[in-house]
Amino acid sequence: MTGSNTPRPTLAHIAEITGVSVSTVSKVLNGRDDVSQDTRAKVDEALRWHHYVRRGTPGPERQVRTVDLVLSGLDGSWPASVASGMEAAAYEADVHVVISRARPTGPTGRGQDWVDRILERGSAGVVLGLVEATPAQLARLARAGIPCVVIDPLSDPPRDVTSIGTTNWSGAYEATDHLLQRGHRRIALVTGPPEHLYTRARTAGYRSAMAAAGLDVLPGLVRHGNHDRASGAEQVRALIGLPDPPTALFICSDHMAIGGYEALTGAGLRVPEDVSVVGFDDLPEARWVSPALTTVRQPLKEMGGSALRTLLRLINGDELESPRVELATTLVVRDSTSPRG
Amino acid sequence: MTGSNTPRPTLAHIAEITGVSVSTVSKVLNGRDDVSQDTRAKVDEALRWHHYVRRGTPGPERQVRTVDLVLSGLDGSWPASVASGMEAAAYEADVHVVISRARPTGPTGRGQDWVDRILERGSAGVVLGLVEATPAQLARLARAGIPCVVIDPLSDPPRDVTSIGTTNWSGAYEATDHLLQRGHRRIALVTGPPEHLYTRARTAGYRSAMAAAGLDVLPGLVRHGNHDRASGAEQVRALIGLPDPPTALFICSDHMAIGGYEALTGAGLRVPEDVSVVGFDDLPEARWVSPALTTVRQPLKEMGGSALRTLLRLINGDELESPRVELATTLVVRDSTSPRG
Repeated sequence: MTGSNTPRPTLAHIAEITGVSVSTVSKVLNGRDDVSQDTRAKVDEALRWHHYVRRGTPGPERQVRTVDLVLSGLDGSWPASVASGMEAAAYEADVHVVISRARPTGPTGRGQDWVDRILERGSAGVVLGLVEATPAQLARLARAGIPCVVIDPLSDPPRDVTSIGTTNWSGAYEATDHLLQRGHRRIALVTGPPEHLYTRARTAGYRSAMAAAGLDVLPGLVRHGNHDRASGAEQVRALIGLPDPPTALFICSDHMAIGGYEALTGAGLRVPEDVSVVGFDDLPEARWVSPALTTVRQPLKEMGGSALRTLLRLINGDELESPRVELATTLVVRDSTSPRG
Repeated sequence: MTGSNTPRPTLAHIAEITGVSVSTVSKVLNGRDDVSQDTRAKVDEALRWHHYVRRGTPGPERQVRTVDLVLSGLDGSWPASVASGMEAAAYEADVHVVISRARPTGPTGRGQDWVDRILERGSAGVVLGLVEATPAQLARLARAGIPCVVIDPLSDPPRDVTSIGTTNWSGAYEATDHLLQRGHRRIALVTGPPEHLYTRARTAGYRSAMAAAGLDVLPGLVRHGNHDRASGAEQVRALIGLPDPPTALFICSDHMAIGGYEALTGAGLRVPEDVSVVGFDDLPEARWVSPALTTVRQPLKEMGGSALRTLLRLINGDELESPRVELATTLVVRDSTSPRG
């Protein structure tokens, strides 16, 4: 309820009442300092008296658009890179970005669903990063006319959901091929949860490269972690404990690869002299570790920027060439891979 | 200009026109699925016909507040930690966070000042992180009635600016004392740009600890970098090239300390056997490097949360006990410091 049926005052009303120009009223509203104290006081009073609603007022003269970036978590450099790329693109497009974390709701979670918060405030559109939106959540956004773009969907998104991903299959193919070229044959794969879309794509890329080299993949050499450091260490400990351990590890996240380093060092093995390691992501930490990690670079900033630009096209009602876009990965060769000794 | 002087429709108007309850209209607006298709269509049409303005509409029944987090940059784990802490506190307070980077403006920069963007959209308040706001920018926010809290002010903020910092002096004192306790006497300091407030506090903490141990600080042992890895490496190379080089380095950012590791390794020196190193920040990368870095932890998440809660008190017009709050640092002892051999 707006509380009153009287028309909302416009800048012109306020200018008329106070006897100043519209641009002077505008200057006062925008906090400019080239207005005399007396004029400012007079205009301020008129604005207050007439309940001029400035903040968030949508008006044909200036509609500031906000969009949402909802992430599974805000800590660490993955969300920072995505947010940085999206914010830069938003700045170019004169759009503002509200950032939030998708918290668990329902029986186990507490508090508000991220969809509730977005609908309550209103948003021109939403970018989801590593968030598994339920069909019901996507439907609520659709009914409210709020378009949505998913970065790195965890599962096959419905056909009508727009997504920005990275070339997981070819990135994994290239990483595996890099190890094959250096003479490795017993190459293990440590990847993410088997149900995730990108895990399936990366596993397929690894298998294709092995098959192209005429090599069988032994079941014990494909293992699943959950992308954190501890799970990487755990899986690598299991691999080096095998009767015939691998000479090279393709570990599908930089954090798991760093955990892998620890497991190898703990067992007295050197990287890359004894075991070669390739990671995935190319987060800043890939350059911090010693030896610097050879890894598959995901263009996270570009993905954030591309998600925003795609979202704007959806907001404007433009046709998209494809509901799913994959940006190219690049293999960054550093010091953690060497020819098989 | 709103383009028309007719009253804006309320939910009650729409309910009356369509013959449904106000709560049903509200359900349709919020995209809820417990409304029949027919009812939804009827309400949707009435909303459109009467130009019901839902997005961003301020109304006494539900005023969604947004605040701004403006940072000097969004990349890396420093801004991620601050944003994460602030967003969590904002969620608790039912406030939404718009995130942006302060871009250079004026003769050398291009585009819009962050203050322009905030005034244009309207915001309940602003948190600045590592952003040097000019007095003119602060005055414009103040005139627009938008309160501001500064995290880690780079220079002495004006008396009326509220700020959240960390105990730089005592953090530096404790780090230096840790090295003194381990028998080091030639302890060098590599810190940030000399004009920054926290550089001065950290340098003073180091000097106080040295003085308390009855030691003189030799001028060549205090050096300034710009917090990045390359400048850390450069300063450490200069230090180890001295005729009587230090046995311990207190390097006032984790990134500079990691650069220092590189300079030491490059010169054939081992950490901590030959040279002990203490960093500052405790970013995640302090744990990634080998040996894991002993460092002074800044409570970045807590600073983000505290900034938001302080901002809400300013928005509500509450009195603050102090315009400046410093949260405590903690020395985190890892593997980069050892007794002097």
